[in-house]
Amino acid sequence: MDRRGFLSVAGGALLLCTIDGKQVAVRTPEDVERVDAAMASLRRPKSRRPRREPARDPLDSASFARPEPQPGGQLREYWIAARPVRWNVAPNGDDQWMGRAAPRPSRFTALVYQRYTAGFAEPMSAPRMPGPTLRAEVGDVIAVHFRNMGTGRYAQPLTVHPHGVRYTPDYDGAYLGDFTRVGGFVEPGEEFTYFWEATPDSVGVWPYHDHGPNHTLNSFRGLFGTIIVKERGEPIPDVERVLWMHSFSPQVTGIPRLIHCINGRTYAGNTPTIRAKVGQSVALHAIGGDSSWHTFHIHGHRWRDASGAWVDNPGFGPNEVVTAAFVEDNPGRWLYHCHVFTHQDMGMAGWYMVDP
Amino acid sequence: MDRRGFLSVAGGALLLCTIDGKQVAVRTPEDVERVDAAMASLRRPKSRRPRREPARDPLDSASFARPEPQPGGQLREYWIAARPVRWNVAPNGDDQWMGRAAPRPSRFTALVYQRYTAGFAEPMSAPRMPGPTLRAEVGDVIAVHFRNMGTGRYAQPLTVHPHGVRYTPDYDGAYLGDFTRVGGFVEPGEEFTYFWEATPDSVGVWPYHDHGPNHTLNSFRGLFGTIIVKERGEPIPDVERVLWMHSFSPQVTGIPRLIHCINGRTYAGNTPTIRAKVGQSVALHAIGGDSSWHTFHIHGHRWRDASGAWVDNPGFGPNEVVTAAFVEDNPGRWLYHCHVFTHQDMGMAGWYMVDP
Amino acid sequence: MDRRGFLSVAGGALLLCTIDGKQVAVRTPEDVERVDAAMASLRRPKSRRPRREPARDPLDSASFARPEPQPGGQLREYWIAARPVRWNVAPNGDDQWMGRAAPRPSRFTALVYQRYTAGFAEPMSAPRMPGPTLRAEVGDVIAVHFRNMGTGRYAQPLTVHPHGVRYTPDYDGAYLGDFTRVGGFVEPGEEFTYFWEATPDSVGVWPYHDHGPNHTLNSFRGLFGTIIVKERGEPIPDVERVLWMHSFSPQVTGIPRLIHCINGRTYAGNTPTIRAKVGQSVALHAIGGDSSWHTFHIHGHRWRDASGAWVDNPGFGPNEVVTAAFVEDNPGRWLYHCHVFTHQDMGMAGWYMVDP
Repeated sequence: MDRRGFLSVAGGALLLCTIDGKQVAVRTPEDVERVDAAMASLRRPKSRRPRREPARDPLDSASFARPEPQPGGQLREYWIAARPVRWNVAPNGDDQWMGRAAPRPSRFTALVYQRYTAGFAEPMSAPRMPGPTLRAEVGDVIAVHFRNMGTGRYAQPLTVHPHGVRYTPDYDGAYLGDFTRVGGFVEPGEEFTYFWEATPDSVGVWPYHDHGPNHTLNSFRGLFGTIIVKERGEPIPDVERVLWMHSFSPQVTGIPRLIHCINGRTYAGNTPTIRAKVGQSVALHAIGGDSSWHTFHIHGHRWRDASGAWVDNPGFGPNEVVTAAFVEDNPGRWLYHCHVFTHQDMGMAGWYMVDP
Repeated sequence: MDRRGFLSVAGGALLLCTIDGKQVAVRTPEDVERVDAAMASLRRPKSRRPRREPARDPLDSASFARPEPQPGGQLREYWIAARPVRWNVAPNGDDQWMGRAAPRPSRFTALVYQRYTAGFAEPMSAPRMPGPTLRAEVGDVIAVHFRNMGTGRYAQPLTVHPHGVRYTPDYDGAYLGDFTRVGGFVEPGEEFTYFWEATPDSVGVWPYHDHGPNHTLNSFRGLFGTIIVKERGEPIPDVERVLWMHSFSPQVTGIPRLIHCINGRTYAGNTPTIRAKVGQSVALHAIGGDSSWHTFHIHGHRWRDASGAWVDNPGFGPNEVVTAAFVEDNPGRWLYHCHVFTHQDMGMAGWYMVDP
Repeated sequence: MDRRGFLSVAGGALLLCTIDGKQVAVRTPEDVERVDAAMASLRRPKSRRPRREPARDPLDSASFARPEPQPGGQLREYWIAARPVRWNVAPNGDDQWMGRAAPRPSRFTALVYQRYTAGFAEPMSAPRMPGPTLRAEVGDVIAVHFRNMGTGRYAQPLTVHPHGVRYTPDYDGAYLGDFTRVGGFVEPGEEFTYFWEATPDSVGVWPYHDHGPNHTLNSFRGLFGTIIVKERGEPIPDVERVLWMHSFSPQVTGIPRLIHCINGRTYAGNTPTIRAKVGQSVALHAIGGDSSWHTFHIHGHRWRDASGAWVDNPGFGPNEVVTAAFVEDNPGRWLYHCHVFTHQDMGMAGWYMVDP
């Protein structure tokens, strides 16, 4: 493999990381190794000690109360670990849409959020992409007990940064250089508990993802998941699925091609096959997970967007969410896919099976 | 022309196609020839015979009733052929906005949907891009009698896949490999009739396009058109026009530059010149027709988007539709264009003439 | 610096300009010089004298009345000059988010709209990007007395083209080749006054920018600003800020990297640090200023979009506007940024400081 040609062959996007206080472009597998090594040796920032005088601010030393559930609300606890796993983007080996073999190779070492039983006693399921869906109702508090199980080259500070829910700066989960608070830098082997409130303006579907010092590379490796907040007592649809539309670039996989995915898998038969039945309430939430814009198209179906207009192919950007909600009425084998032609042809498609 | 430099000079996007069950990148004119030859020799899939056991599903052998118009509704019949035509992206030769000659060369062999009289007796108009606009009201059924008139290198299986309307899997018009139903693979010389329902949730403006085995290349060559569904008895605006905003890449044209178009034409004077009069109701529907995002800006005008906000430049993605609807009140020669600076500078602009 | 590699190293987008009636690609610093020289020598178009007979139209010789304020409305006068200034994208020298030095070099010669006192007596403030925010209420007329102070290589025809407000063709501010009206070609040293109406459908936040013959290059150099129209008597939020999310390409700066900016600055600490207080009404308006799509994400906050849905990261395209409006309730140091990972990593981020 010609190193200089790595990205141009693969159509990969430019990635940037910071090493020793300098920004570097990440183009080749060696660049990625250097970044990972630098991140693994990064020291914990001295919080509340900005490196320049003018940047100091009383807010950086302020304390914030830990949120409590509202009367009638619950504390919803999750034990979630970030850990490396061998990942196969095409475990069935096929592109069932086009009736052909999926491109090879298809394996690399990903990073995922995996759910555990209380106290990290044991995993609750096989590793998945996206990570566990966190559910809450208005008035609840979500507690994410997060353990960084990064090892080897992935022994780097990691975090969990949520969208949609309310949190104080301590639970933001964002690395902020000299202004980093404790939840923004969780070192390998460490645990940290995030507390997030489901407020009335949290109703909806939201992403969470790594926001540590190596956030772009590690989010692109698989560190993302979903939060669903409903009104109190609001029913869950009969079929409710989250579909992350994203890609693995060569920098992430070491594979010299761009791999377009839904939930970490590529091509129909590997991507989620969703099954519903006529009469069921269905809600499919599509979320952008890379640096591109995507659309979400389901054959044979239409639904109202947030403004009330009928759509069958809405667009959305990175970490934006669109929801296709309808009562199922059209049986058959249907294709769902991103309508960016180059994305669908590189694997961003799947089956939606509707029984009569 | 340096073959290796073909795409880099032209700024063309990566296209992928499937030949003999393998995915290939389409970069040079020779790549395109190879893909076309492979598509021309593709055999009809054995429907309901998936190549792997686990993929078999009862839905693949299910039968579906042909839709009928609702009481009071009509059957609206269209005879539409897909055929190659010599196409000139700049028939007037000018870029009237910048007062200069449009770049040369400007001709290539496109594929268009063309409307015919009943039984394909004769064409109803010159070839156009987009293809014929299909109109219906809620309760109607649209019947598209489709004939594949592909010849030469364009003698390939083609289809018509609609958005927005309701259809059973037989009338989806999508090639699905081993799961393809009859409407998803119409061979050269063949005819097939699609039946699509205009249901209450079909109200709006929608694209249709090729969804056969070579869908990306053939849609990009010009195989696209528009469906407009209205409430029963809803009046048609005084001026209602559809504007497809798309591009022809070098792979499609053999011309070493990216050509940004509206309705298959490039640069003001070649793109549609729209004419309206103060007091008229106007509806302009902009549709994305390539893999890029675009915006639709009209000088001197504002309108409400679906959410009720005032806009003059909404964005939209591939096969998304935005509508600019207003009562005309501002006479003059106006420019309309995509506000992506590089797109407008490559021809995605036109004149909107308003008489007092 | 390898000239051929200039753009590939920098990730810069293709720019096109017209010289002597021909379109040329602008790839190297020398290309930019040639374009600027051609623009500086461009002659004023002979208005209403289209170069080809068939293009002549009665609209091109029509006259239009100058708009007057509605009863109770005001004439709001602004004196605005376009002028070159030395511009530093990172005056503080830091990337405070990542705790590192911002990349060097960081200076180039930009073009800005700068506000002056009546009659261009003296500048009202230091040069800024975006240019002055023009405010009006429904029924008002905005008068922009525009002076082209372009000098040196920037001695080129310039204009001001507004979105959202109502104007006649004379005040469109768009170069239209042979169809150009007087406000579409303001030569160096000249003045022209634009009159724009704030009508009921102008309520909102809108961009203005150069739309002269070299519009793309000069808009990208900094010739952009904002118009805010409110209902009559509508209060201004306690904290109302405009955030232009854009980039400087190598063609614009001569610096061999793509610089992602908010209001002309790159990286937190240089980009606007916004300050608010719990209980204040806040409105932050994000506007796309280049050829890319962006999103606007504020940590710790959510707000309703135009359709009423809760969002914290809406996407928008070139010259589209999204508004984050809320009553502040969450103290702390927060990050705001574009959620396109490559954009945030190249500087499209800033601080939002909320006092208790």
